[in-house]
Amino acid sequence: MAGGIVALAEQLQGICLGRGLTVALAESCTGGLVAATITEVAGSSGYFLGGVVSYSNDAKATFLDVAQGTLDAHGAVSAQVAKAMAAGARARFGASLAASITGVAGPDGGSEEKPIGLTYVGLATAAGVDVRRYQFAGDRAGNREAAARAALEWLVEAAPGAAPR
Amino acid sequence: MAGGIVALAEQLQGICLGRGLTVALAESCTGGLVAATITEVAGSSGYFLGGVVSYSNDAKATFLDVAQGTLDAHGAVSAQVAKAMAAGARARFGASLAASITGVAGPDGGSEEKPIGLTYVGLATAAGVDVRRYQFAGDRAGNREAAARAALEWLVEAAPGAAPR
Repeated sequence: MAGGIVALAEQLQGICLGRGLTVALAESCTGGLVAATITEVAGSSGYFLGGVVSYSNDAKATFLDVAQGTLDAHGAVSAQVAKAMAAGARARFGASLAASITGVAGPDGGSEEKPIGLTYVGLATAAGVDVRRYQFAGDRAGNREAAARAALEWLVEAAPGAAPR
Repeated sequence: MAGGIVALAEQLQGICLGRGLTVALAESCTGGLVAATITEVAGSSGYFLGGVVSYSNDAKATFLDVAQGTLDAHGAVSAQVAKAMAAGARARFGASLAASITGVAGPDGGSEEKPIGLTYVGLATAAGVDVRRYQFAGDRAGNREAAARAALEWLVEAAPGAAPR
């Protein structure tokens, strides 16, 4: 894993252990990359509860309670699904914070409306659920790492102000 | 990700797409490393349904139906829990094959009975659930990669004879 994103995971761990926060994940296009980066750091079991790699739509519904109607209406790569994934992960794991990632990593699956690199990152805390939209311009590996970095950066940004649970 | 384990993921993808098989995962000590490796390969959404990173015991019960009694009696790092995780992932995702990994990656968490590097890999198919025991001798990163490799090798070994679902 690239050193840069492991450093973010170390930073997140320091904040969460210090403040008694727990973290969960719902990953689609990153496919476990954020969880693998977080758990690369020794001691991560002290705050990281786990994650769901919801590569199929069925998994998004079964494990994260994303409504089939939301998937049908907006598609898996959408702000609405990113928010539902984050909220579902936070509720199901009982975590203080949960981040979600859904995007088109490429090289296949792009369209005019949803080009390769389009990625939504969701964040759920006690204060509510929010989403950010990105348009990355890398190849599959680059887009996945950029998405993982965006999720970790947002967790690091939000954790100091988040309420424990 | 090390080239060696991505090559195993490419091999697995070739077999599964050719035979109409689907795969799911339940990862504990590898923390998403197997899912991240599988999804590094373009086209993996054609057979990979997803995975659960069950870092906490609660997550093993909630997402994979591992019985609390099994966790209490044998501990999270045990043949029994590895088998339950694999069976739970296969059932919940509706996959042809599911692999599970639970172990002590280190540097903390080792004991006389369950030393650092002790790892169980489970595999569930239509034919049943089986488990293999390993004692790795690396550091945290080395043990995680060895565990990921063992799971991918077993999937590659089992897929040619596995029934679709």
